[in-house]
Amino acid sequence: MEDALEKQIAFIKEIDKLKYIQRKTRLFNSDRHENDAEHSWHLAMMAIVLSSHSNHEIDMLKVIKMLLIHDIVEIDAGDTFLFDTTKNHTNTEEELKAAERIFGILPEDQAKELIAIWTEFETGETKEAKFAKAMDRFEPMLQNASNNGGTWREFNVPYEAVIEKKQKIKDGATNIWDYARNMVDKYYGK
Amino acid sequence: MEDALEKQIAFIKEIDKLKYIQRKTRLFNSDRHENDAEHSWHLAMMAIVLSSHSNHEIDMLKVIKMLLIHDIVEIDAGDTFLFDTTKNHTNTEEELKAAERIFGILPEDQAKELIAIWTEFETGETKEAKFAKAMDRFEPMLQNASNNGGTWREFNVPYEAVIEKKQKIKDGATNIWDYARNMVDKYYGK
Repeated sequence: MEDALEKQIAFIKEIDKLKYIQRKTRLFNSDRHENDAEHSWHLAMMAIVLSSHSNHEIDMLKVIKMLLIHDIVEIDAGDTFLFDTTKNHTNTEEELKAAERIFGILPEDQAKELIAIWTEFETGETKEAKFAKAMDRFEPMLQNASNNGGTWREFNVPYEAVIEKKQKIKDGATNIWDYARNMVDKYYGK
Repeated sequence: MEDALEKQIAFIKEIDKLKYIQRKTRLFNSDRHENDAEHSWHLAMMAIVLSSHSNHEIDMLKVIKMLLIHDIVEIDAGDTFLFDTTKNHTNTEEELKAAERIFGILPEDQAKELIAIWTEFETGETKEAKFAKAMDRFEPMLQNASNNGGTWREFNVPYEAVIEKKQKIKDGATNIWDYARNMVDKYYGK
């Protein structure tokens, strides 16, 4: 029990570093970049208030765990911009190594559980992962719309690229995708 | 459904402001103040990894919801420092008004649910609230210990005041309190 607690506290200290990982997107109506810890909190809150829009019945505790931990690997691997075309976005070896190192600070059973949940999110095939990924894609769209295009404008992202990357929201929550697509169409004048 | 989504999105935008509410405590081994969104994320993560230390069986989804929303009222009411002796710390009228305004942005059933969960946390009487409050009290202790006393040193908080305010951790998780008390004793040379 005491040995477990020591490991858990070491993990709690380690993940403090997520507060320093900056995302490309900025807070609502703001110039200030969002960090990964704030982002993870916001996604978990979105999942709570938007759960009734999920296409499927979902295990909310699992969805929230996914969202709270999904970016922890970025402590080692750094943030990858969704529209970065030079980098592979899913399950890179670097991220898997990071997951094993960081979750591996925990007692073995907990490390296994969180690596499994993180992998399930990354793979994106279960109902819970689809809804969680919808949240992850939707939040920066709301931020960009509030920031006169935000990263779409800043990095000259073409309309088609936004639609291509974001339409996966549909797999988790159809009517959130309808809302999101309207926002994109409006910004790009479609 | 569409009307509900509009309200939910208005709420999601409103709570972005939690990222600007600064706490007195600072990140681990750091001079940088923590904000309420980062803090809420960290507490939810702590609850996940420390749940086996709870004195009682607890509904983890409720505990996590409590921790994610517990400081949202501070968007209107501001952060109250635990060791501030001039201010009432629980359920002030200002905080209740804030809860009604901010959660009231949501559809009525959701507003009611979140106000009830927030009130349950504030009241602190259920098993879930006791464990959630233990997390809220424990995190800044770890931060202070990593920052050579942190706010204990900065505000000259006496040993007895720390013990008095923090011993409620015991009601949620006895062996986390044993660990926490050792940390305090060590810092104060007891």
